[in-house]
Amino acid sequence: MNFMSIKDASKKRPTIRDVAKVADVSVATVSRFLNGKTQKMSDQTAERIRVAIKKMNYVPNSAAREMARNSSRIIAVLAANIADYFSVEIYRGISSRVEEAGYISVLLNSGSSLTHERQLLHSINQHGFDGLVFQPLTSDTEQVAGELTRDFPVVVVDRDLPRSTWPKVVTDNYEAARSTTEYFADQGFQRVVVLTSTIELASTRIQRFQGISQAASTIETIEIDENNFQPDAVYGALKKALSRPGKCLLFALKERWLLEFLPRLMKEHVIDEARTAVTGFADTALIGSICPYAKVVSQNPFLMGQRAGEILLQMLKGKKNIPEESVIKAQFKH
Amino acid sequence: MNFMSIKDASKKRPTIRDVAKVADVSVATVSRFLNGKTQKMSDQTAERIRVAIKKMNYVPNSAAREMARNSSRIIAVLAANIADYFSVEIYRGISSRVEEAGYISVLLNSGSSLTHERQLLHSINQHGFDGLVFQPLTSDTEQVAGELTRDFPVVVVDRDLPRSTWPKVVTDNYEAARSTTEYFADQGFQRVVVLTSTIELASTRIQRFQGISQAASTIETIEIDENNFQPDAVYGALKKALSRPGKCLLFALKERWLLEFLPRLMKEHVIDEARTAVTGFADTALIGSICPYAKVVSQNPFLMGQRAGEILLQMLKGKKNIPEESVIKAQFKH
Repeated sequence: MNFMSIKDASKKRPTIRDVAKVADVSVATVSRFLNGKTQKMSDQTAERIRVAIKKMNYVPNSAAREMARNSSRIIAVLAANIADYFSVEIYRGISSRVEEAGYISVLLNSGSSLTHERQLLHSINQHGFDGLVFQPLTSDTEQVAGELTRDFPVVVVDRDLPRSTWPKVVTDNYEAARSTTEYFADQGFQRVVVLTSTIELASTRIQRFQGISQAASTIETIEIDENNFQPDAVYGALKKALSRPGKCLLFALKERWLLEFLPRLMKEHVIDEARTAVTGFADTALIGSICPYAKVVSQNPFLMGQRAGEILLQMLKGKKNIPEESVIKAQFKH
Repeated sequence: MNFMSIKDASKKRPTIRDVAKVADVSVATVSRFLNGKTQKMSDQTAERIRVAIKKMNYVPNSAAREMARNSSRIIAVLAANIADYFSVEIYRGISSRVEEAGYISVLLNSGSSLTHERQLLHSINQHGFDGLVFQPLTSDTEQVAGELTRDFPVVVVDRDLPRSTWPKVVTDNYEAARSTTEYFADQGFQRVVVLTSTIELASTRIQRFQGISQAASTIETIEIDENNFQPDAVYGALKKALSRPGKCLLFALKERWLLEFLPRLMKEHVIDEARTAVTGFADTALIGSICPYAKVVSQNPFLMGQRAGEILLQMLKGKKNIPEESVIKAQFKH
């Protein structure tokens, strides 16, 4: 194999005129081909251009075209952690919407690292993306504004960036948690055991916890430090909390913790349907396979992504009066 | 809120010289700042530049810089379907490797659609990405070559593109399937029920099936058409196959089918540890929660991604003699 390096390729770069000459068509036709406007072109013409491009190793000069129209037609999506299905669904929703409008969207991953998030914001700022949808890890708006020095459209999704002026798309975390807790309280599950990552680190968790607090009689909270996760210690605390007398509701603020602990809780008969209700925010149908009587709260990340994409498109068109906050309701399946 | 549109912003665009003047530093210093080379810069200087950039709404002209160095420093990763954790892990592996070398990587998603895959290849070809790692859906190498008319580094991962000259990174599908089947055959599970999506549509599945065939005495295959998935019909066929007399091994070529059918098979006592062994290719630890005696074959998508990233970096450096095929061994946990 012989891969020409980028540098070699640039030395005697053929132009669009060279391609047109070899393919025996006009420059305008090659241009239409390069912009994907091949509907009104015969297959033979398209094929001739394709062959000419290949033969000459013509590099469509996207950078030059980008400068000419001052737009890359690429939207960046910076997700908190794409190991979470939730982040991936947000991206899929954004893609589906912006691609209809002729943009492509690319996904970048902070991977739950604040340092990495900052580096990627810096890179995104440097490159010619037309817009950004951002699921922040940080709540430090100043820092984000310090990295995003270009005035280009930004939409915040799933989390809050306090005092930022970027529009955001969120779930009704407070209300969903409150009404779900109330549903179980009405059935006699008034004591709640909350299983969660450190609450204060995410605005979504704070809101969910407040919603539960509003509707529960008694709350016992088991907070897990994700950076120092000790499964056995957490399981021990959970077992103790769930074994106290009386009916109780196990409410996980994140699907991962249900997936982690439910199988063992069921197997060791720490919980059963009559005594313990199980709920939590969940993005997949897996909980039902593990615990058939669990009733989960599902957000709609795909729809959140679509809305974020829609708002970004409006900003790209220069539309004013974009709503500061758009709420996509979570669904409690019971 | 008032979001300046991209077009407005371009009218009287400030230059790097303007920024240097306002920040009272040299153009070279601003340039170093823009390229992230701030290690030897005082915090005060960096802050002055940051403030000047923000104040003037300076747009770092990445397109111009890209033309100058003829490199975007962005790697595109086109995944088959990012709803699969496997694809996401490949991307994470690639990112971890190329970011060490000063590139960023962005993820795009074919979403199991051949049409969409083709469109995205076209877009990737148009834009100034420095390289591509590609997990193909298609096995039509001609078509891919027709879209990727630029001669830039491409690495194929997880799948085969027959007769292509692009290097590829794969799992030892045949050998992993063969040795796993042999392990169970040695324990008396010589009859195998294979649960899979349509085999002929993916090179990985063909290789796995051949590996199983090599080591099994009898094979019964249940093929699922993903575009016309009928859970009850598949469950019925599966139940029938697993209920025949004698010990048998259930071998799923894809984790999804285990997640889909195992809970019901266990609940309805169609399978038990003495009579039915359970295995399959799986990317998460979830199967163990559903069926404690299952023993799965796990590939290492993160490592596959790292290797693909490494190969791409070598190609970017113009290295010759890149190996055509790199194999990352799957692990059978028993």
